[in-house]
Amino acid sequence: MTRDRLVVIGGDAAGMSAAAQARRLRGAGDLEIVVVEQGPDVSYSACGLPYWVGGEVPDRDLLIARTPTQFAADDIEVRLGTRAESIDLAAGSVTTSAGDTLGYDSLVVATGGRPLRPDVPGLDADGVHGVHRLADGADIRAALAAGARRAVVLGGGYIGLEMADVLHGRGLDVTVVLADPFPMAQLDAEMGERVCKAMGDLGIAVQTEQPVREIEVDADGAVAAVRTDDGRYPADLVVLGLGMGPEVALAEAAGLRLGETGAVEVDRTQRSRSHPEVFAAGDCSQTYSRITGEPLHVALGTHANKQGRVAGSVIGGRPARFAGVLGTALTKVGDLEIARTGLCTTQAEAAGYDYRTETIEGTTKAGYYPGAEPITVKLLSDRGSGRLLGAQIVGGPGSGKRIDVLATAIWAGLTAEEFAGSDLSYAPPFSPTYDPVLVAARVASRVEQG
Amino acid sequence: MTRDRLVVIGGDAAGMSAAAQARRLRGAGDLEIVVVEQGPDVSYSACGLPYWVGGEVPDRDLLIARTPTQFAADDIEVRLGTRAESIDLAAGSVTTSAGDTLGYDSLVVATGGRPLRPDVPGLDADGVHGVHRLADGADIRAALAAGARRAVVLGGGYIGLEMADVLHGRGLDVTVVLADPFPMAQLDAEMGERVCKAMGDLGIAVQTEQPVREIEVDADGAVAAVRTDDGRYPADLVVLGLGMGPEVALAEAAGLRLGETGAVEVDRTQRSRSHPEVFAAGDCSQTYSRITGEPLHVALGTHANKQGRVAGSVIGGRPARFAGVLGTALTKVGDLEIARTGLCTTQAEAAGYDYRTETIEGTTKAGYYPGAEPITVKLLSDRGSGRLLGAQIVGGPGSGKRIDVLATAIWAGLTAEEFAGSDLSYAPPFSPTYDPVLVAARVASRVEQG
Repeated sequence: MTRDRLVVIGGDAAGMSAAAQARRLRGAGDLEIVVVEQGPDVSYSACGLPYWVGGEVPDRDLLIARTPTQFAADDIEVRLGTRAESIDLAAGSVTTSAGDTLGYDSLVVATGGRPLRPDVPGLDADGVHGVHRLADGADIRAALAAGARRAVVLGGGYIGLEMADVLHGRGLDVTVVLADPFPMAQLDAEMGERVCKAMGDLGIAVQTEQPVREIEVDADGAVAAVRTDDGRYPADLVVLGLGMGPEVALAEAAGLRLGETGAVEVDRTQRSRSHPEVFAAGDCSQTYSRITGEPLHVALGTHANKQGRVAGSVIGGRPARFAGVLGTALTKVGDLEIARTGLCTTQAEAAGYDYRTETIEGTTKAGYYPGAEPITVKLLSDRGSGRLLGAQIVGGPGSGKRIDVLATAIWAGLTAEEFAGSDLSYAPPFSPTYDPVLVAARVASRVEQG
Repeated sequence: MTRDRLVVIGGDAAGMSAAAQARRLRGAGDLEIVVVEQGPDVSYSACGLPYWVGGEVPDRDLLIARTPTQFAADDIEVRLGTRAESIDLAAGSVTTSAGDTLGYDSLVVATGGRPLRPDVPGLDADGVHGVHRLADGADIRAALAAGARRAVVLGGGYIGLEMADVLHGRGLDVTVVLADPFPMAQLDAEMGERVCKAMGDLGIAVQTEQPVREIEVDADGAVAAVRTDDGRYPADLVVLGLGMGPEVALAEAAGLRLGETGAVEVDRTQRSRSHPEVFAAGDCSQTYSRITGEPLHVALGTHANKQGRVAGSVIGGRPARFAGVLGTALTKVGDLEIARTGLCTTQAEAAGYDYRTETIEGTTKAGYYPGAEPITVKLLSDRGSGRLLGAQIVGGPGSGKRIDVLATAIWAGLTAEEFAGSDLSYAPPFSPTYDPVLVAARVASRVEQG
């Protein structure tokens, strides 16, 4: 009996979702599944790393959703500590650091992302850390245990903000250094300004519009400070919070076609545009905007999971399509919750929309109910059709998850007016009579009619 | 110069929204607006009453959104303590308890709801209270101050549950007596069971399947106990928590057509089916299901607001339609949050759907994040089309407001599969990688494909 073989490169969200879904659809007698993973773990939550560093999550093992033993029970072979050295697309094989050559019938490239790095001297010094693998979390924890007192976070993406927050919570002096005027580049300026202010109120220093020029290194090769044109910020610890790019060195060397975002170009089924027996999923793959259809690169565990699942379905023989992304994101700094979905103004402009914006201030609960907190909701809608294009929320506890309601409205293609009529829940401990997201839609819809 | 006159009967959510919206569209020189309200306040939050009783809201005035003085500034005349005694539909006039006869060009009937009452002896005893007007709240607070120690709540609608919760919180022995097998009739049995158990765990006694037979009254005319076929529950205080019916005595006497739900029958613009110059909005009016199109009566401040606004728009000359209700509802008992939207199984059956259900268990945050609480999500979908029909959520803090995401998906007419692909937010302090609402949709969609 000959079995097909599926080889998966990379054992995190996308790779293991693909493996698990393919296994659900095709038994071990029909399909052999081998996952090669260069690190010591599979299925770990990179998004949980800040909270392990912060101490909210006490044990690294809690960040691991499933172990190789659990996958083995499903006849999925996981080779840990094994690096895929090269892919021979013509022969249909992968060569590993263990010296094996693994032929495949289907291949899933799920090599993930890598922290973006500014091109400055000193970046390889001891004490400069990405926030990417469990080992990064262990290194940062070790630095804290060794007495690090001053941290500089480069960049204001959500991992950067979360790291700033948890390091500040651990008692460090934290400075965030941004090239942009505000953190969270995918927020509009006035929303980013609120985030900036909240960070300052917490006691986190934010240095804006200061591209980093150099990481100063001491005589022992350890980081000493971060230098910009405007200042010098002493640091025992530097954290890369500039976002993630696609990790495509292996795919590129093999000759897989990359898209305009630099990630592996795939169709809606996660199949490589250049090699139909090869799939790519997760942070290494290019995806697309649900709204504009344009190519995007978005590194996030939710998409990685879904894309891996789509690839696994297709390999397993069941049709599936990835339905696109809105770019929904959610984070918090202290008690301030920050969320966004769809297009922000710069994106709407770039996409050629004639859009309008509405921003409203409300409260998270009935104004008279204890614990009601301020919430700001901004909506973007297409001026002609009224279709919702994007939303941003900044506010106190209970604010952030409301972005899901707007994401669903945008996902479904609703206009502001259609959404404004919708029947959302109301009870004083949970919202004002009109939920703030509806108030925003109502204003957008009234303006439209008026 | 002759002005049109709009008369509004009833000065709560629906009536005042109608008045305010009509004023926005037509100036005082063009339209006179007179509101007659039998009580001492307008624009008060009946939904907030339990929390005033419970002490979360310290002052009754906090429950009043706008005062007559504020409306007067917009040239809206409010006559408090003035009861509309009769409507002469042929003449187009309203006679008030002050002896005036007010001619109208347009009339908005917004007489609200009234607590449903079981047809049993003793219901007029001292100590039996609805939860409807601010005076009810004051009466119940007075009873607590006078030393009431034992409360019986009749019925397990959301006001009943909230009153049981806050009275228990104030230290009373609380018994909830239900004719049904579970509280929250619009939840399916297994979800109602969870609510029942949570109430029991809190120390609230729940007596199910026991229609009340009599309110026993003592020699002073005060309530002594609630009697069912199975038991006798001593009470210093009895609260009506059976839900609200439409208050239509005035409309019915005048000859306005009522619908099959017993509420005033209106078209999508809130215009009376029998008298086009008369509108009805809020708890006294009949509304309709967004899903089935069938007539419904749903008493809730959110709908009252929107319906009043629609009536006011139409009177003001701007087209508007009420887009229907899903029956979204949200409440909490202790820390347990309870939410529903769309059709439950009995409603789906009655409406003739061939439906399927999926129920999933998850956590409100990433499982490893502190404070992650259990959440149960149940979905109903149409077996043929996959269209989402209804949802129910029961779980810990952070669970309930997630119903809005499902309400929006149902509002937009999404199938389980379409919704399952949607881009909801993820961060460990806020949800697992797949939000529980998405997991439920994914299961529904997988079952569908499988």
